[in-house]
Parts: sequence; structure tokens; C-alpha cells
Amino acid sequence: MSNPCIICVAITGSLPKKANNPAVPITVAEQVESAQEAFEAGATICHAHVRNDDETPSSDPEKFARLKEGLEAHCPGMIVQFSTGGRSGAGQARGGMLPLGPDMASLSVGSNNFPTRVYENPPDLVDWLASEMAMHGVVPEVEAFDLSHILRAAEMAKAGQIPPVPYVQFVMGVKNAMPADREVFDFYIRTVHRLFGDDAPWCAAGIGANQLLLNEWAISSGGHART
Amino acid sequence: MSNPCIICVAITGSLPKKANNPAVPITVAEQVESAQEAFEAGATICHAHVRNDDETPSSDPEKFARLKEGLEAHCPGMIVQFSTGGRSGAGQARGGMLPLGPDMASLSVGSNNFPTRVYENPPDLVDWLASEMAMHGVVPEVEAFDLSHILRAAEMAKAGQIPPVPYVQFVMGVKNAMPADREVFDFYIRTVHRLFGDDAPWCAAGIGANQLLLNEWAISSGGHART
Ligand SMILES: [Zn+2]
Ligand SMILES: [Zn+2]
Ligand SMILES: [Zn+2]
Ligand SMILES: [Zn+2]
Repeated sequence: MSNPCIICVAITGSLPKKANNPAVPITVAEQVESAQEAFEAGATICHAHVRNDDETPSSDPEKFARLKEGLEAHCPGMIVQFSTGGRSGAGQARGGMLPLGPDMASLSVGSNNFPTRVYENPPDLVDWLASEMAMHGVVPEVEAFDLSHILRAAEMAKAGQIPPVPYVQFVMGVKNAMPADREVFDFYIRTVHRLFGDDAPWCAAGIGANQLLLNEWAISSGGHART
Repeated sequence: MSNPCIICVAITGSLPKKANNPAVPITVAEQVESAQEAFEAGATICHAHVRNDDETPSSDPEKFARLKEGLEAHCPGMIVQFSTGGRSGAGQARGGMLPLGPDMASLSVGSNNFPTRVYENPPDLVDWLASEMAMHGVVPEVEAFDLSHILRAAEMAKAGQIPPVPYVQFVMGVKNAMPADREVFDFYIRTVHRLFGDDAPWCAAGIGANQLLLNEWAISSGGHART
């Protein structure tokens, strides 16, 4: 197979705590251990959030720095992807770890609803995050919570804000945002190919109960998978 | 033709002022006069915002009440549609005119970016606006600024929050939201038909320079038009 499937492991999201699942890695040491197991099992990207000591989401660059060090030591060659998502902080604090120069970082390019609130990514913050990534050599993973986000990525690529062929992730199954809908999924793929070429990479993440379904859809359609 | 095209005239948006275009109707008297001209020319829906005396957007129910009276007197049978959009107020103030019982009101069901900010429609506000419309017999026009908004409308229809076959408007050409893209437009139509049936009505609004383009696309594809 000329185009191997890339497996991205999200070791620690922003929400689940030990009380929800005792296996969730919270401390940096736990995160590195968890990433190493996934790395040895074949995952090549580690998507990571960090947490405060009370398990709440954090965007502390110091924690991200220790995580990056640990991953580099224990998972040599694994692609380190930091989250700049909005659950861990507000405004430019979300990108405070970008000067550490991780291989990749998630980049939301539009706004949408989340289960109980608005996921706010105002245009000036999006532009700033993209410029920070460009400045520090960080490859963005564009998080497409809705269709317009893929078209927005094309405009940003044309403007030179992100690479000409960005790595796009379809996020489906978030309540009040885009559900896991097969017709939409197929249209997302067609849109990526139309805007960025037939070889443009993409991956898909199903939230909660939709995770395995989205893995199936992605792998069988030539995309990459998020676990 | 068994399915005549409905023309919706937006007499006064939320932004343009007299300085931009001296023909923009600002006072209620000017609005009624403008609507009457459009009504006589064939428009059957009047989409309306109201303005303060200094031309800034308003959500004052008193102004909406005077506008409704004027429209009923001068444009008998014209469908009155009030905007509950976010430029005229915040939170529940956006729906303060719904107890007046206009025929229709615009309903945004998701959030997205606008040119310089986030267009915030948090889930609890969306639910409240829909329930106010249902309580006062107001038919919603679902504003689809992005694809997920059409799927969200289907969930709300299933939950009985809005009619089983809602009237959906595609909004294209807002900077940082969905551009005027023909493939997306055609997929929007397919999605409306898939979710609400082949006879489900829809209309399209092109913002700014995209207005005539969207009118063309909508009319030639069996949709209704916003001027
Ligand atoms: Zn994440
Ligand atoms: Zn991914
Ligand atoms: Zn309007
Ligand atoms: Zn309309």
C-alpha cells in the first residue's frame, strides 16, 4: 500500500477525568507512558492536551514543554501535535506553547456550537494562531467542525497563512455541531480533493460513541484515523 | 408553474446606513413605503430589522410593533418576517418582538464566524427562540450559514421544536463563514431534500456582491429568492 494509514492517538482529551475513566493519563509522566504504548502499537502522531494538577484543562507552556521532552525521549520519531483548542484556555493563551515548536498543532479556523456553549474562534485569533504556527515551523492540523471550515482553510492556504495542502481533520459527532453523517463525510472528502488535490491528506475524528464508526469510515476511504 | 418562486425583500438590513446608500429605509415610515413598493412589484415576504433613530440596529419591540401595523395596513397579505439575528441585540432581547406574532422570524440554529467576530447563537438561546416562536405561532426561517445548521434543523424538527418541514435559507458570501460556492450550494439543496423531502422549500441569500449570483442559482434550481 503506497499510502499507509497514519494513526493519531489522542492520549488525553480536554474533558475526561480519572473519575470517568481511571486509565486517562493526567500527569505528564502518565501521558508519556500512554503515548509510548500507543507508539509501540503503531500510532505515529500524538495529539495532546495538558492538565492542571486538579485534572482541569490547562494551556501551561511549562507542562507542554515537559511533555514534549518526555515524548522525544521515549517515542523517538513520533509526531508531537499540541492542541490549541478552546477548552484549555482563552484567546492567545491557547497558543502559548507554539514557541516550543511541536511538529504539529491543531488549528480551528471557524466557530461553531458545542453541546452547551459556543466554541469561539474569532477571525483575529485564528489569524494569530496560524501566524504563530508559521513562525515556529509548526504544521497545522485544520479542525473542520463544519463544512465552511474546509473552504476557509482553502482561503487561508491561498493567502499563504497555512501550507498550500493543509492536513485537514473532519470532526464529527459533537452535539450541536456536525453529527456523524455519511453523506456529509463523503462530501467532506470530495471537497478536500477539489480544493487541495486528489493526494491531499485528511483524517477524521469521531467524538464519543462515534469514534469507531469514524475510524471505519476513514480507513476504508483512504483517510487517516484518530483514536 | 406549480411552484411559484417566492420573493423575499429585505428592506433594511442591520448594517447599511443613509451615508452608504441614501435609499436605505431607516424610519418605520420609510420601511413601510419601501415594502409597499416591493409588494406591488411582486415580493411576498418582507424580512425586516428595525433601527434606532441614530440608524444603529435595534431590537425594540415597540418599533417592530409599529412596523407590523404599517405593513398590515399598506401591504395586506404580505408575509411579515422579523429578524432575530445577532446584530440587533444580545441574548433574549433578540426575541423580544416574537410575542407580537409576526408570520415568520429568522432563526439561527448554530454559530459561525462573521467578518470580524463570532456570530454567537449558543444552544440555550437557540432553544429559547424556537420555543418563543412556537408559542406565538411564528414560522421560523432557519438561517443556514453552514452545512451543520441544516442538520441541526433536522434534529430540532424531529424533537418538535420547529415544524417537521422547516423553511431553510442558505446564506452565502459572508466573509469567514460560507462563501458563494456552487458545489456547496448544490449539496445544500440535496441535503434539504434528503432530510425534509423532495418538496421541502428553501431559499438563498447572497450577501453583498453575491446577491444576484445567488438569486440566479436559487431561481434556476427551484428555490426562492431574497433581494
Ligand atoms: Zn484535542
Ligand atoms: Zn488527526
Ligand atoms: Zn436580516
Ligand atoms: Zn428568505
